[in-house]
Amino acid sequence: MITGSRAQLVALLKAWTEAADRMTRGLPAGEIGPVEGAANVPPDDTGEAIGLDASGLTITFGFGPGLFVDAQGRDRFGLADRQPEALRDLPHFPGDNLDPARSQGDLCVQACADDPQVAVHAVRNLARIGFGTVSVRWSQLGFGRTSTTSTAQSTPRNLFGFKDGTANVKAEEAAALDEHVWVGAGDDAKADWLAGGSYLVARRINMTIEVWDRQPLGDQESFVGRTKDTGAPLSGGGELTEPDFTMPGSDGPVIPRDSHVSVVHPDHNGGVRMLRRGYNFVDGTDALGGLNAGLFFLAYVRDPRTHFIPVQTRMAKVDALMEYLKVTGSALFAVPAGARPGEHVGQALFA
Amino acid sequence: MITGSRAQLVALLKAWTEAADRMTRGLPAGEIGPVEGAANVPPDDTGEAIGLDASGLTITFGFGPGLFVDAQGRDRFGLADRQPEALRDLPHFPGDNLDPARSQGDLCVQACADDPQVAVHAVRNLARIGFGTVSVRWSQLGFGRTSTTSTAQSTPRNLFGFKDGTANVKAEEAAALDEHVWVGAGDDAKADWLAGGSYLVARRINMTIEVWDRQPLGDQESFVGRTKDTGAPLSGGGELTEPDFTMPGSDGPVIPRDSHVSVVHPDHNGGVRMLRRGYNFVDGTDALGGLNAGLFFLAYVRDPRTHFIPVQTRMAKVDALMEYLKVTGSALFAVPAGARPGEHVGQALFA
Repeated sequence: MITGSRAQLVALLKAWTEAADRMTRGLPAGEIGPVEGAANVPPDDTGEAIGLDASGLTITFGFGPGLFVDAQGRDRFGLADRQPEALRDLPHFPGDNLDPARSQGDLCVQACADDPQVAVHAVRNLARIGFGTVSVRWSQLGFGRTSTTSTAQSTPRNLFGFKDGTANVKAEEAAALDEHVWVGAGDDAKADWLAGGSYLVARRINMTIEVWDRQPLGDQESFVGRTKDTGAPLSGGGELTEPDFTMPGSDGPVIPRDSHVSVVHPDHNGGVRMLRRGYNFVDGTDALGGLNAGLFFLAYVRDPRTHFIPVQTRMAKVDALMEYLKVTGSALFAVPAGARPGEHVGQALFA
Repeated sequence: MITGSRAQLVALLKAWTEAADRMTRGLPAGEIGPVEGAANVPPDDTGEAIGLDASGLTITFGFGPGLFVDAQGRDRFGLADRQPEALRDLPHFPGDNLDPARSQGDLCVQACADDPQVAVHAVRNLARIGFGTVSVRWSQLGFGRTSTTSTAQSTPRNLFGFKDGTANVKAEEAAALDEHVWVGAGDDAKADWLAGGSYLVARRINMTIEVWDRQPLGDQESFVGRTKDTGAPLSGGGELTEPDFTMPGSDGPVIPRDSHVSVVHPDHNGGVRMLRRGYNFVDGTDALGGLNAGLFFLAYVRDPRTHFIPVQTRMAKVDALMEYLKVTGSALFAVPAGARPGEHVGQALFA
C-alpha cells in the first residue's frame, strides 16, 4: 500500500470495479482515474489487448490481513473492527521456505483468461489505475489451469504429469459450495460484509521436477495414490471412482497411507473440501539448470482455519509428495462476493 | 554442455529428432534414450501433456558458437573447421545490460505451441532426454506471439501496446525468404551444412512499461512512428501502407527520424529484412513493484553480420524507443534446415 486514506482506497475500488467491468466485456479499461489526490496516473488503456476479445476474462479481488491492521499494528483505514477472525497470516508449515517478496499483501487481484495477453493486460491496467495509491508487491504468471472447476471440463495436469484437482468442488455442486466455499451469513459477526464471499489461499509451490522425473512410474503413482494415465485411484476404477483406502496391497493398503490422495482426502480431514483454481508456472531456470517451476496453488475455502490449515499441516508432516515440493510464497485473502450492479467491489466492508 | 563426446552429441541429436517428431504429432516423447554412456536418464515421458493434442507444436534446434570452439578455445567435437564465419558471439551494443545466465549457449531449442503446457512439455522432455549429456543454461517462457509470420495472421501487439512485426517477412514471400532468411548454398564455403537453414538472434529485451505508460499517447506514437490503434505509419494510410519518411510535419518529418519505424526500416538499412518470431514475457515483479516484463525478440536472418548487427547498432544509437528498453539476454545460433525423413537434426554438420 502507498495510500493511508480510506477515501482513496474506496475511490480505487470504485475505479477498479468499473475497469474490471469493462475489461471482462472485452473493452479497454477506459479513461478511469486518477484516484483523487494520486498524482500522475497515466490516463489511457495500455493497449496490448486491442483487437483481442475478452477471452473468458474473470477478475477476482481480495483483501489481506494487512488492510485491516498493518505490520506496525496500525488501523490505517478504520477497518480493524471488521477484520474477519479467520483472516490472519497463515502459520509457518513444515516445508515452507517463504520468500517475503512473494508472500502476503494487502490487496489481491486474480485475473484468469484463455489468452495470457488478456490476463496480463488486465492486471497491468489495474496496477496503472492504482499508480500513486497502491503498488505491486508481487505477481505470478501461470498457465494450464490445474483443477477442473466445472463438470464440463476434463481434469488438467500439473507439472508432475498427474491429473490435479479431480475431487475439486465443482460449480454445479450448489450444496457443497455453500458448505465448503462460500462464507455463511452467520459465520463471523464482525465480518458480515464477507457473507457470500470466500477466502483465497495462495501458495507458490516449487516442484523439483528433475528429481521427480527420475522416479520410476510406479513410485510416482505410489506417492500420488492414483495412476498417472487415467487418474484412477490405485484401488481401481476410473478417475471419478472413490478411492478404497482399506483395500490391501502387497505391503499395507494398495493406496499407501502417506500417498497424497490419502493424506488430503476429505474422509481423513473431517470432510472438508476446497475449490481450487490454480495454475502451473515456469519462471526460467535456476543456477543448477533445473526449471524454476511448480504449482501456483489457489484454493477458495469457507474458512481457512477448518478447510486449509489442518489439511496443510497434515500434508506437510506425512505426505510422500512433500519430498518434491518447496513452498516459496504464501498469502491469504478475504474475497468479498461479486459486486452487484451499481456497487463497487467490497462495498459492504466500507458501509 | 556436459559431454565432450562427439558420438554422444550425435546420439543426442538423433534422440531429440525422434522425440520432436513424436511430440509434434501429439504423441508422448516416448521411451527414447538414454544416450549411450549418459547415466540415469528417466525413461518415461513426463506426462503433463497427456490428453492434450499437438496444439500446433513446432520445435526448432540451433547450434551456438561454443559448440564449435568453446570459451577455452577447445574444439571439443571436431567441428571447428565447419564453424560458420557469421556464427560469433554478438558484439556489445549500447543499451546492453546482459545477464550471462540469460545469454549464449551451445545448443538451442525453440518450442512454440498454441498451449503453453504443450511447449513447456516439449522443452522439458528434450532436457530430460539430455540428462547427463547436456544441461539447461537458460530458458525463457513467452506468450502472445509478436510478429505475424503469415499473411493469414493479424499482427499481434507487444507490451508497449503497439502492433509489432508489421513489416515481417511472411511465409508467403518466397523470394524475400531466400534473400533475407535462408542461408544460400554459396554463402559460406566452410558451412555448406547450413545451406537452407538460418541464423537465430535471441534478445531478451526488458521494457520499462510503467514509465512507458506515463507517456502521452502522442509521444508514444512519435517514438514508434506508427499509430497505436491501427498501426498505420504517421504519414497516413493503413497498417500495411508504406511509410512516407519525407512527408513534412510541424517540426521535421511527420514520422520522426528517431522513431523506431524510421530507424529500422529497410530503406534506411540497405534493404535488409528479418523473419521475427518473438514473444512477450512477464517474469514476475521487480523490487520496485514494476513488472519484470518485455519482449523476447527472436529473429531469423540469412546473415547476422548484414541483417542484424548493423540494424541493432543503429537502433541502439538513435532509436527513441531505447530509453524504454534494456537488453538483459543475448544469444546467436545457427539453425540448420529441417531434418529430412530418416535423418537427424543437423546431420549434414556431422557428415
